[in-house]
Amino acid sequence: MSFASPDSSDVTLPAFADRLARLAEQAGVSGADVILIAPGPDLEYFIGHSVASHERLTCLVVPAAGEPALLVPTLERLGWAGTPAESLGLPITTWTDGEDPYLALAGLLPSDARVLSVDYHMPAVHALNAQAIVPGSELTLAGEAIAELRMRKGTDEVEALAAAGAAIDRVQRRIGEWLKAGRTENDVAADIAAAIVAEGHARPDFVIVGSGPNGASPHHEASDRVIEPGDVVVIDIGGPMPSGYFSDCTRTYVVAPTADEPIGAKVQEVYDVVRRAQAAGVAAVRPGVTAESIDAASRTVIDQAGYGEYFITRTGHGIGLEVHEHPYMVAGNTTVLEPGMAFSVEPGIYLPGAFGVRIEDIVVVGTDGPVLMNTAPTILTIVGADGARV
Amino acid sequence: MSFASPDSSDVTLPAFADRLARLAEQAGVSGADVILIAPGPDLEYFIGHSVASHERLTCLVVPAAGEPALLVPTLERLGWAGTPAESLGLPITTWTDGEDPYLALAGLLPSDARVLSVDYHMPAVHALNAQAIVPGSELTLAGEAIAELRMRKGTDEVEALAAAGAAIDRVQRRIGEWLKAGRTENDVAADIAAAIVAEGHARPDFVIVGSGPNGASPHHEASDRVIEPGDVVVIDIGGPMPSGYFSDCTRTYVVAPTADEPIGAKVQEVYDVVRRAQAAGVAAVRPGVTAESIDAASRTVIDQAGYGEYFITRTGHGIGLEVHEHPYMVAGNTTVLEPGMAFSVEPGIYLPGAFGVRIEDIVVVGTDGPVLMNTAPTILTIVGADGARV
Repeated sequence: MSFASPDSSDVTLPAFADRLARLAEQAGVSGADVILIAPGPDLEYFIGHSVASHERLTCLVVPAAGEPALLVPTLERLGWAGTPAESLGLPITTWTDGEDPYLALAGLLPSDARVLSVDYHMPAVHALNAQAIVPGSELTLAGEAIAELRMRKGTDEVEALAAAGAAIDRVQRRIGEWLKAGRTENDVAADIAAAIVAEGHARPDFVIVGSGPNGASPHHEASDRVIEPGDVVVIDIGGPMPSGYFSDCTRTYVVAPTADEPIGAKVQEVYDVVRRAQAAGVAAVRPGVTAESIDAASRTVIDQAGYGEYFITRTGHGIGLEVHEHPYMVAGNTTVLEPGMAFSVEPGIYLPGAFGVRIEDIVVVGTDGPVLMNTAPTILTIVGADGARV
Repeated sequence: MSFASPDSSDVTLPAFADRLARLAEQAGVSGADVILIAPGPDLEYFIGHSVASHERLTCLVVPAAGEPALLVPTLERLGWAGTPAESLGLPITTWTDGEDPYLALAGLLPSDARVLSVDYHMPAVHALNAQAIVPGSELTLAGEAIAELRMRKGTDEVEALAAAGAAIDRVQRRIGEWLKAGRTENDVAADIAAAIVAEGHARPDFVIVGSGPNGASPHHEASDRVIEPGDVVVIDIGGPMPSGYFSDCTRTYVVAPTADEPIGAKVQEVYDVVRRAQAAGVAAVRPGVTAESIDAASRTVIDQAGYGEYFITRTGHGIGLEVHEHPYMVAGNTTVLEPGMAFSVEPGIYLPGAFGVRIEDIVVVGTDGPVLMNTAPTILTIVGADGARV
């Protein structure tokens, strides 16, 4: 049983070779002599395989000029056999416990390398020890250079995101099976987690069940709170597919009230504002506009409805081999959208002590507008009528 | 359902206050003006709560002189309510999407801070952006300073490790229920993963089932290889308990051969060498000796038996809130062992293309010798006799 990322074995080898070549170009453009990448989604993206990252150094070395190379611990060398990294013909060097891994890394760097650029996720211990082994070197971030490649999805990647979206939509369409008054958020979350796997994901990554006042905390996950009739419940769920690509979809439900009470006017009003804000954000998506304009499109609707102070998050985040990646739909981000960029549009209104409402779809920038990866209905859905009288 | 670390709610608040005070002292000793800690086991250790780390900055600020403070994203502020961090009276500052989190961080640093020291795990993006916000600052690693505290376990922590050891021992004692010829490594691993949870862990963290030649790759996890009669199988398993403390135990089994074949002489010989090496490493544990002397004690046995070149790993690693932490039992580590230090002793012999043998116990340094956290028998065990004829 592996808890590491799955291989991107559905991406053909030339894609990896091309990605590595384009990363070397980006190194040059960004002023880096060499880009260093530790285990994680970046490694997965560039060489189709990664490993669980503990304290031992594994590092991909991509010089601006020259050939890339991979450094791995001796005891993990056999685990790289048969991976795309090996098939690519990437030279794989090993270091053994008791040796200095940074000295081994230095041997793989261009002799005149002075600007070392590291991926966003590289643990500080590796980044600073790599810098220390090259006297006079400067340490910079390769995250922007890497994002230049990763945020423009290819056809295969969009297909993977669409499959992920369809899988999580199937779970959202089944929420009524589990979300009922009398159950705890944890009970509901456990059922959803199982369904996330049953519907095709490699694993659940997050299962937010924010009922009543808990929904006002955007990153609340789940608790032992017992769900009550009439509760507004935020369900924000997702995880990686076997392809490595993530799903992420939020819907907000109302649990059937007791007797025949209508849904409160406030809930209906807030829900409608969020739904219009989300639709406005999606509708604004097309090539040539800025990331911050998507945020503004959603935010304006909420501001004008008088709820601006309760929309305490950005509007969205990029998605791919990570659930959060570039580009971010946030004020100040002037990145211009291009076809193939993929991100969430997820405005919300969070009323402390009362409830929260969030609606989230993943959107890909098409040649002339938005392409939705999620199609679960966004209309206000009342669930659990049979559980409302417990 | 939370996939973040559980709270260390069984550790009383004064322990956290004391840990923070001692960390500030360590900052002074190590020449740091301030220590910065991102989400992960270090945060859990010092303030009893952590969060899943995505791109948004959460950071504990511990000045050498002055009061500690915590910076969190606005949208996660409610999630810190009622945690030990809040009960400690730690000031909690927020930053909101669209604002610069590093500017917010700068506001929490001592005005004359020039040496910023970051935990080992801090993602490079946060470490380098923190440095950039303080002109002329130097970035160093706080890992050693933090390890000075974390590697000396208190009584509560040793109790937590003992409970983890007992839980994983119960799984090892049940291996015969699942490890049988005709099943795949993945089949066996799935059963073991379920048992790890059933026996009291919060989740399985790693399930290595290395059968036959796969056992010669120390970090092989599990595959679709079908286990054969007579296979030597390395089972290395563990995970965190609800306390946050990890288990980690390896035993090597032999699957019953067909008919009444005896176990091969080579297997028996290699197993005996590893068993003697592991016992020698454990027996060498006492206060006042070096970490590298434990490695040497195990390694000498394997070297003298002529298998030195096949022992391709260090002898052990510290364990606590991480499965791998300081101190490491490896050549070159002159750390002097003190009572309360906890680590694995796990020599192995890895014969490429044939099989591997590893035996691992967690040991705590007692006042006059080793205290074993694992008591599952280390004698060579033959399992799955009823499955041997499939």
